[in-house]
Amino acid sequence: MRFLKLTLSYDGTAFAGWQVQPNQRTVQETLEQAIVKITGQAIRATASGRTDAGVHALGQVVSIAVETQLSAEVFCRALNANTPEDVAVLSVEEALTGFHAIRDAVSKRYRYVILDGPLPDVFLRQYAWHIPSGLDVDAMNRSTKSLIGKHDFSSFEASGSPRADSVRTVSDLTVERDAECHSRVVVEIAADGFLYNMVRNIVGTLVEVGRGTQPVAWPHQVLAGKDRKLAGMTAPAHGLFLVSVDYSATPDK
Amino acid sequence: MRFLKLTLSYDGTAFAGWQVQPNQRTVQETLEQAIVKITGQAIRATASGRTDAGVHALGQVVSIAVETQLSAEVFCRALNANTPEDVAVLSVEEALTGFHAIRDAVSKRYRYVILDGPLPDVFLRQYAWHIPSGLDVDAMNRSTKSLIGKHDFSSFEASGSPRADSVRTVSDLTVERDAECHSRVVVEIAADGFLYNMVRNIVGTLVEVGRGTQPVAWPHQVLAGKDRKLAGMTAPAHGLFLVSVDYSATPDK
Repeated sequence: MRFLKLTLSYDGTAFAGWQVQPNQRTVQETLEQAIVKITGQAIRATASGRTDAGVHALGQVVSIAVETQLSAEVFCRALNANTPEDVAVLSVEEALTGFHAIRDAVSKRYRYVILDGPLPDVFLRQYAWHIPSGLDVDAMNRSTKSLIGKHDFSSFEASGSPRADSVRTVSDLTVERDAECHSRVVVEIAADGFLYNMVRNIVGTLVEVGRGTQPVAWPHQVLAGKDRKLAGMTAPAHGLFLVSVDYSATPDK
Repeated sequence: MRFLKLTLSYDGTAFAGWQVQPNQRTVQETLEQAIVKITGQAIRATASGRTDAGVHALGQVVSIAVETQLSAEVFCRALNANTPEDVAVLSVEEALTGFHAIRDAVSKRYRYVILDGPLPDVFLRQYAWHIPSGLDVDAMNRSTKSLIGKHDFSSFEASGSPRADSVRTVSDLTVERDAECHSRVVVEIAADGFLYNMVRNIVGTLVEVGRGTQPVAWPHQVLAGKDRKLAGMTAPAHGLFLVSVDYSATPDK
């Protein structure tokens, strides 16, 4: 049995998310169908985390355990030949025995793209959240400071999905306006793990600061309150990209 | 009767091009339906040029003659409220009496986007031509020199569509690799007018030079031969963007 680490990019627009669901087009099922076509084996593919419907991936990591004589490179090409155009397998690497994309993940990075300004951009309609009013990016950036570090993020967890432990460590959180495309505002966030909808709830909260409807200190108050009802709206799925997953503590073979 | 100049952006992916065709979704019909909804008038909208199925527009210009009391700004908002997400009306401006988007155009600019390298980009699959081999952009750029200026471009005109006059003046033609996204190669071309498929045929020809299958001097030989059979393949529609149309000789009111 070989353990393989797959890195995938996908456009989430036409998928009902990662996880297999009856009568839905999902990334997991799409990938597993390609694997069974190539190897004859109906195996389960495990992603670092589920992405919701509409959420995109630049570097989702998937672990599989499979019997195949194909080299990693040939297997990668075969997967791309057997997946639709909205999924790309960027790499296939040999992994240590037992490699597990969820359990072994050390940190993850997400990007959230906002387009602010009066005009819509037809080319970003599925890849950015359009906010007609201009955002104060400087205020948003100052308000992120209180969220960086080890905190109980239960205020930013989707209601109805409490985990035993809602403490996470956010190592990086920035808001930047694109130097070339001035109406593009990018939020980047890295953490050792994320609660359900945590990125989208943080973005929805930061946007209130950017709009000027809440002060810079507000996200800190939301965090301290440990109550989902305090936070801003959940930002829509289609602006969210899973950028990368770090496994540096469990090096590849 | 008011003459208006509309500037439109559209994602060509889900359209059968600009021009109305029976049982097809077209940009023209989409726009005219919005106009009739707002004004009650079934009028013809004239674009600076038809774009083919799959071709995109960043700044297509459309002229209409319409009776309406709405200000240009309000009419623009109303159009956006009545068009689908893959069309955006960027501006509506008052134009001189008789303004005609085709006849009055002085020059046009197109962009063609190529993605070279082994890996596909799922987010560009409808917005760039993916060429798995690396392109020699420097050679492509040198080969464009002979195409700039006033020439008979009949070698680059789609076969079966001869025009009385196939002489056009190309004022700008550049090939550049994107500084940030290194696998993105952008061809920009401006001219006083374009023959049918001229941009896509020029790009298909330049790509042969970029691949090294033809020498730098080849596009000049193709041009001089005045025979469509000499040129390279027609580059696919989905990498093509109409960037802007210039009407500087006929200023707005």
